[in-house]
Amino acid sequence: MKFSLYDTTLRDGTQGEGVNFSSLDKLRIAHQLDEFGVHYIEGGWPGSNPKDIEFFNLAKNETFKTSKIAAFGSTRRAGIAVHEDPQVLTLLAADTPVVTFYGKSWLMHVTEVLRTTPDENRAMIRDTVRFCKEAGREVIYDAEHFFDGYKDEPEYALSTLAAALEGGADMLVLCETNGGCLPDEIADIVSKVRERFPDAAIGIHTHDDGGLGVANALAAIRAGATQVQGTINGYGERTGNCNLTTIIPNLQLKMGIEVVPDLTKLTELSKYVDDVANLPHFPRAPFVGSSAFSHKGGTHVNAVQKLSRSYEHIPPATVGNHQVVLVSDLSGQDNILHKANELGFKLARGAPGVKGILDAVKQRENEGYEYETADASFELLIRKILGEYTPTFDLLEYHTTHRTHGVRGFETCEATIKMDMNGQRVYTVEEGDGPVNALDQALRKALITVYPEIAQITLCDYKVRIIDSKSGSAAKTRVLIESTDGVTHWGTVGVSFNIIDASWEALVDSIDYFLNRHKSA
Amino acid sequence: MKFSLYDTTLRDGTQGEGVNFSSLDKLRIAHQLDEFGVHYIEGGWPGSNPKDIEFFNLAKNETFKTSKIAAFGSTRRAGIAVHEDPQVLTLLAADTPVVTFYGKSWLMHVTEVLRTTPDENRAMIRDTVRFCKEAGREVIYDAEHFFDGYKDEPEYALSTLAAALEGGADMLVLCETNGGCLPDEIADIVSKVRERFPDAAIGIHTHDDGGLGVANALAAIRAGATQVQGTINGYGERTGNCNLTTIIPNLQLKMGIEVVPDLTKLTELSKYVDDVANLPHFPRAPFVGSSAFSHKGGTHVNAVQKLSRSYEHIPPATVGNHQVVLVSDLSGQDNILHKANELGFKLARGAPGVKGILDAVKQRENEGYEYETADASFELLIRKILGEYTPTFDLLEYHTTHRTHGVRGFETCEATIKMDMNGQRVYTVEEGDGPVNALDQALRKALITVYPEIAQITLCDYKVRIIDSKSGSAAKTRVLIESTDGVTHWGTVGVSFNIIDASWEALVDSIDYFLNRHKSA
Repeated sequence: MKFSLYDTTLRDGTQGEGVNFSSLDKLRIAHQLDEFGVHYIEGGWPGSNPKDIEFFNLAKNETFKTSKIAAFGSTRRAGIAVHEDPQVLTLLAADTPVVTFYGKSWLMHVTEVLRTTPDENRAMIRDTVRFCKEAGREVIYDAEHFFDGYKDEPEYALSTLAAALEGGADMLVLCETNGGCLPDEIADIVSKVRERFPDAAIGIHTHDDGGLGVANALAAIRAGATQVQGTINGYGERTGNCNLTTIIPNLQLKMGIEVVPDLTKLTELSKYVDDVANLPHFPRAPFVGSSAFSHKGGTHVNAVQKLSRSYEHIPPATVGNHQVVLVSDLSGQDNILHKANELGFKLARGAPGVKGILDAVKQRENEGYEYETADASFELLIRKILGEYTPTFDLLEYHTTHRTHGVRGFETCEATIKMDMNGQRVYTVEEGDGPVNALDQALRKALITVYPEIAQITLCDYKVRIIDSKSGSAAKTRVLIESTDGVTHWGTVGVSFNIIDASWEALVDSIDYFLNRHKSA
Repeated sequence: MKFSLYDTTLRDGTQGEGVNFSSLDKLRIAHQLDEFGVHYIEGGWPGSNPKDIEFFNLAKNETFKTSKIAAFGSTRRAGIAVHEDPQVLTLLAADTPVVTFYGKSWLMHVTEVLRTTPDENRAMIRDTVRFCKEAGREVIYDAEHFFDGYKDEPEYALSTLAAALEGGADMLVLCETNGGCLPDEIADIVSKVRERFPDAAIGIHTHDDGGLGVANALAAIRAGATQVQGTINGYGERTGNCNLTTIIPNLQLKMGIEVVPDLTKLTELSKYVDDVANLPHFPRAPFVGSSAFSHKGGTHVNAVQKLSRSYEHIPPATVGNHQVVLVSDLSGQDNILHKANELGFKLARGAPGVKGILDAVKQRENEGYEYETADASFELLIRKILGEYTPTFDLLEYHTTHRTHGVRGFETCEATIKMDMNGQRVYTVEEGDGPVNALDQALRKALITVYPEIAQITLCDYKVRIIDSKSGSAAKTRVLIESTDGVTHWGTVGVSFNIIDASWEALVDSIDYFLNRHKSA
């Protein structure tokens, strides 16, 4: 039986805290999933909200080359004929080739949550499958809480699957809804289901509440499941669903199951979906995270340069990711050379300038700088040492004033900047929320007439740490700033005994880096 | 054999991108791990940097009730006598009861990375274990890349373990260094090792590159391993190490292996370590994340209100977490009551004032406050609401000025404070390194004549985070300050659009808390 991927990012994924898609967002993601080679895309629950109905209306007029669109719903309600249940009728009205609905497998849910009888629950499953099959749809049956139900009352749980098969279901998906099972339990129970229904197609749907969403799905697949349901980046209620961006490369690279035609698009897809959802990309995400192939310790950097598989389980390019070498106080000459060459400098071990960079980095690290996430400051430092840097402006003086009346009262913060720009004295003043914001505003005001492109820059993160935590507010402060022009991101660092100066240094580096890159482009 | 937890947050954890600890940070975390009941704490690699040596010097004078401190290193170098190897000597000089070091199990690493012979590699392992044992230490041997090595050349990999046992190693830890193996491979290989060395104690050290760090460690434990190595919140190189905050509750609640005395402290510990590292807490983290027990879908909310285990794999309180209902927020009362009573207030459910505290906390958390590490601010808030607070001073106005000549030139920062103290107008001015330090100085100057005891207060940590990271320097800022009087430590929090105001709020809370405590003592 061919293995299939079933994506529920657009339905179960949106149950996650902070995950919201418009119907157009959903359409854009559906096309990316189709391009990537996902076999089924669950678009939403038409019975639950009008946005999902709108998505299915839009999707009807679109062409998908690989993916089949599925609408999601539940069985008919208890004590009502299936053809009179509005939720079931809305599900069919979505007019999708595939219909997926869930029913109850756990007797406790039948009696305590649905408050109906064991027999009626089975009839609800059987009737709903049959009704959808008679409407000509491919029917996927999601057996909610199957594993918990099986652990409580195995025979009852199995009998609900039998009801779905009697109705004519094309696929039985065993759902680990609460996410608390262990892989061995999953393997064992899937095997039991296979013994009982040897001809049925079995799918697996897991959640990550125990941190085992992917492991549990893999265990089910080893035991014979041929479909996996999950979401991109593991979105989903509570801790999320089985993460497709993790399980796909495991299936394809580790277990030899061909699931998608081109795995090198994986990292791009993962970032795309985070961008549409407006969520930060998790740096430590397996395979696709920005740290997934990053190396910090000197011994590791030295080894991966001799032989990349010495500390990398796969070549990063296989999944469209890349190796990153971090510069830190744990690093040696190899880290720095690697990083410099990555930034486009052509330096060999022992080349002129290398010693100067090494000494400068060590000295500045000792003063409290940190270049791990401050690539842009590191690049400026190298340029300065190699004599490949021309200043864009020359700061003469800056000044901030802050006044508060009463603890929670009226407040102002003002910054003035005096600088020399191409021989011209520029003197600006601006106000802002706090001294750093005021300085940022005043600096932009000074530069924007000559460099209008700086309007593109936004500061997207600002972090402050005391370096020596022994001496409190008089200790050195390190500021890390992350900036973006909407296309790329860059990090800069500043260190001073004074938080305003440290912020200012990181701010100036950010704009300076951007302008230098523009000049050389 | 008793099961043991081995924490390497302070060593392998710091290999993670963005994870940096001062030696004092390490000491604070070590005490929390000890309180929690971790059996071994790996503090660092003394041979690699002076910061780690400093940690071991500090730790020597501290008392730990459960944890043994371990120093980490590597085998002796090839072609040198073990007692002449400076790295090994530095390792022993750390003077810890436990010494852990790694050696090579993978023949490819021996020949391509170390560039030595298979025999010499075994001798390096054997000699180093023996030398450390003769120095009277408990020796834990980390067999780096054991699984990859075994898959390539099983007999060679096993022979390196034999060398460690010949030297007298107390524990053989099988390391899945590259993080790319599957749980079934792990189970199989651990069983083979157990067959070969039935009397040896076996540990497991995994990484999360395939998203299976926890699952792989669980598979090894099922196959007989009795120690797990990992890090709090899964810090570590690339995608991180086995996440102890995930595996501990799985072991204790799902597999019935007793590992810590009180699991309800887990969420608090997880947040504490993130706070010290100044990293955001991952909301979707299993067990301890803020979304781990959150419910959004209507059917789920309805069901969990009938029966919490309908969509929760464990009761959230078991791990010190709580249920969150995203539509109608009913939760939190128990946490707040627990915390308030911990601070010495005697409040019962429904007591007068409880609702007021609950509402205030909800509102302030919504504004960006966070009381996890800000006990002192939380206590002041409760006192104010219960009417058990008398102000020590009344601030009328404050003002800071900052001037710099040239980017690295002469700079001054001045603060003035006008306040009313017992009907007396006090107006002081001081200067400092940065506006916060200047305000601190001016405030102390104003208060010290009336309250000479404030001279005992030192600020020992100061952390700043942007709350909404989308809008850069104009976003809200949260400041966390930790203070000490040399005997106890307390944390305070301030939030504002302006970093100076946020700092000021946390500063005032710190001194106010101290003075209030003195008055009531």
